[in-house]
Amino acid sequence: MHDYVIGLDGGGTKTDGVLVGQDGRVLARRCVGASNPNDVGEEASAAVVRALAEVLATEAGVHLADCFVFGGISGALNHREGLTARLRSAVPVPGGVEIDSDMVNLLSAELPNRDGACIICGTGSACFVRRGQEVFRIGGWGYLLDSAGSGYDIGRQALEAALRAQDGRGCPTALSAKLADALGAPVQDSLTRLYAEGKTLIASLSPAVFTAAREGDAVARAILDRNAAALAELLCAAWRRLCEGMPEDTRPTGMPVFLDGGICRHNHPAWRDAIASHIPPDVPAALSLASRPVIWGAAAEAMRRDGWTPDTIRHAGSVFLADPHISG
Amino acid sequence: MHDYVIGLDGGGTKTDGVLVGQDGRVLARRCVGASNPNDVGEEASAAVVRALAEVLATEAGVHLADCFVFGGISGALNHREGLTARLRSAVPVPGGVEIDSDMVNLLSAELPNRDGACIICGTGSACFVRRGQEVFRIGGWGYLLDSAGSGYDIGRQALEAALRAQDGRGCPTALSAKLADALGAPVQDSLTRLYAEGKTLIASLSPAVFTAAREGDAVARAILDRNAAALAELLCAAWRRLCEGMPEDTRPTGMPVFLDGGICRHNHPAWRDAIASHIPPDVPAALSLASRPVIWGAAAEAMRRDGWTPDTIRHAGSVFLADPHISG
Repeated sequence: MHDYVIGLDGGGTKTDGVLVGQDGRVLARRCVGASNPNDVGEEASAAVVRALAEVLATEAGVHLADCFVFGGISGALNHREGLTARLRSAVPVPGGVEIDSDMVNLLSAELPNRDGACIICGTGSACFVRRGQEVFRIGGWGYLLDSAGSGYDIGRQALEAALRAQDGRGCPTALSAKLADALGAPVQDSLTRLYAEGKTLIASLSPAVFTAAREGDAVARAILDRNAAALAELLCAAWRRLCEGMPEDTRPTGMPVFLDGGICRHNHPAWRDAIASHIPPDVPAALSLASRPVIWGAAAEAMRRDGWTPDTIRHAGSVFLADPHISG
Repeated sequence: MHDYVIGLDGGGTKTDGVLVGQDGRVLARRCVGASNPNDVGEEASAAVVRALAEVLATEAGVHLADCFVFGGISGALNHREGLTARLRSAVPVPGGVEIDSDMVNLLSAELPNRDGACIICGTGSACFVRRGQEVFRIGGWGYLLDSAGSGYDIGRQALEAALRAQDGRGCPTALSAKLADALGAPVQDSLTRLYAEGKTLIASLSPAVFTAAREGDAVARAILDRNAAALAELLCAAWRRLCEGMPEDTRPTGMPVFLDGGICRHNHPAWRDAIASHIPPDVPAALSLASRPVIWGAAAEAMRRDGWTPDTIRHAGSVFLADPHISG
């Protein structure tokens, strides 16, 4: 157990970092640039993590050798070993440095010591399950290989529906006009731009689907229903994972589920209810919007991996979350 | 009507060209590099078309001014105006030069003067319908925005099934092992590579799905069935287009459909039968594999657009297709 932990929350836009003492006091906080290795490369991702950890230690006036570093970084799952190796050889952290998905931050923010699940639904989607010391991922295989209710899937299916209406396969839908408004041109004239800007542009069209559905368009409603069902399917798999190998009478009586990501936040509580409507009665999932800052999750995960006791983490959490730099 | 036509068939790998006289004799034939404007850009695509037309005229010993040029080029649909403008200003072809999708070559090879449809199903998929002088496209909006039975869709859905089996959402499938064999590593360890190589690598996995289905895997069979149904849906829309506005008793009694592309060719006749099994009895589609060289279609389309009579085109076709350089 180290005297301090550094928790990092990294993504495609920025990397947030915090250095915390055993009493939960925030001794340093800094935000720097992108560290998603899929976007910036493994070398640059490791350099950002290294630089941020060093800056935080300097700012707090402590030795990096006294810190345990955990970085929850989007896109890191397929680079975990490479990033860890680069960091261990470059950063003088005897206790080590560990890297995982940024989803672990969300999970640890809301469920530091409890079993349960988190669903993130923004441009992409994924579900993470905590069962004791184990963390499982369900879904989240990226935009090309998964179709589970992400903003990208919702936008893509809306574009497909507009094109199907146009070429005579599908029925007319208000989505054609809504998407043309959002794109500034009919969908069939926007193909070059859609392929050039790809995932980000396609996901940015999802609000038009929610609007069309609210206004009664049946095609938009069917798209949202299908995607809510896909997210519910993640939670059914999460519940099976949580109960795997347990005799019926020792199973948990409920599964707390925390929702995060732009789609969940912007469409709460309707989206939560849409997901819940597809969960069968024998899966006792209790859905609510995530409310704790993910940077706390990064710090809490560092504490957990460094062997701090649940009591110490709980106490640190109450001090940390009351800090005006965090809660403000 | 010009003395000669030049027909071009361009794609992401090569551009095939032929110069033909009014009697159908092949006076020059050449193959050069890629001209898909999505891959090489509009400027380079126009440069390839221009250079190939000039080489063919020189080789045949005729003036380019005596030739009508038609280029059926993959990826050209969203660049038609830009490409045509670039070529008209650069090539001294008084009669003009016209550019369209490479699908038009296939359509004109098989249906130069008849109404009907063509389906191409390779890495991508699309359906083209000829009704008199009009040509309609159904589907073919590219790999991100369409889900209509292409090799890409088949491969993508197989990867998704393997990942769903892995994360507990889906049932076990022989696809997991088949795809791991093809990729040299389990699917979940191949994500970085799959995203780096994208569409081409994903489509290249479709043979594994046909193998697994033949060996009895239910998940693979369901994927193929779903994709065959999506292709049949294209043909139902094609039939509605063909009959649009016609009183019932004047409708055609049949719709010839020609199949092309790697998926159709490698899995014939099983794939043809799979598609046909999803076509309702009131759609009189007669499916067969395309057999005429698409370069003939490019030349025939040039003749048609240049105003040659159906009889002249038919006679030219019989001479052209007997040419040992073409049929051989």
